[in-house]
Amino acid sequence: MTAIAPLRRKRAAATGDAPPATPEELRAYIPYLVNRLSNRISADQNRYLGTLGLSNAALRTLSVLHIYGRLTVNEISVLAVVEQSSASRTVDQMLETGLVTREQGTGDQRRREVTLTKDGAALLKKIWPRIARRTDVLTEGISRDDLDLCASVLSRMIDNVRQHDL
Amino acid sequence: MTAIAPLRRKRAAATGDAPPATPEELRAYIPYLVNRLSNRISADQNRYLGTLGLSNAALRTLSVLHIYGRLTVNEISVLAVVEQSSASRTVDQMLETGLVTREQGTGDQRRREVTLTKDGAALLKKIWPRIARRTDVLTEGISRDDLDLCASVLSRMIDNVRQHDL
Repeated sequence: MTAIAPLRRKRAAATGDAPPATPEELRAYIPYLVNRLSNRISADQNRYLGTLGLSNAALRTLSVLHIYGRLTVNEISVLAVVEQSSASRTVDQMLETGLVTREQGTGDQRRREVTLTKDGAALLKKIWPRIARRTDVLTEGISRDDLDLCASVLSRMIDNVRQHDL
Repeated sequence: MTAIAPLRRKRAAATGDAPPATPEELRAYIPYLVNRLSNRISADQNRYLGTLGLSNAALRTLSVLHIYGRLTVNEISVLAVVEQSSASRTVDQMLETGLVTREQGTGDQRRREVTLTKDGAALLKKIWPRIARRTDVLTEGISRDDLDLCASVLSRMIDNVRQHDL
């Protein structure tokens, strides 16, 4: 294992009223970085998932059902960060291919809850190592401490602009 | 000015071969956080820009031209994180509305370079304070040091997975 040198902190772009004026300021402007990175990760993942006949929306749906157990389509939409119409379409496709089931909620009978089937759970488990390898490449050369702090900052920013309780 | 308490660092999800299994692990999984945040920022910005008859793609095009001066549509596509077809369509619309011009490159005559017009530069300057206010909300309660480190980590991750030299 090689030692990881601490990252040189870049001065972030001033949050004044002027837009970033240099490549360096752009490369320190968090909304830009988040957008650029998200786009790259999604494109890579979509290419890989496409070879399996899956989409990002389907992977994210498998993931949040693995964590939360029972969710409505609306909850899946928020947690999996998929538009409502796309979440609905994705769940329909996954019902057809047997990755999920849908039934009445036990507490509230108006709730229509989606859950993973055995096949859905097995598929998530099977493809995750490939997803994890991509994450390893993404975080290469960055210390655990710096990654943890970055995750905390991102999480805090989500809380700052969230519109749902989920 | 109120003092900003340091963020409590969360243990990031292990990058092992198992998917996040709890809401806490999901909330520490950087690809998820980046995607969720990017989606929220874009949706907010699109709503505001829509009231001005603009799109995120147009704002990003104005921004990168402000920084780089002269760019081809292909370069705009990479730097502004807009699909090639959308970048091309956006530039065409901006040519029509007089926000940009397009001309032959001075060095390489095959290069067709896009630049901001006076109107384009003025529009970016005019709308930026609203964009900056959104960024202030996003980063509220997070120390400058933590933001700088987060930006450095994001920037490093982009380098780890980049496919273009830009």
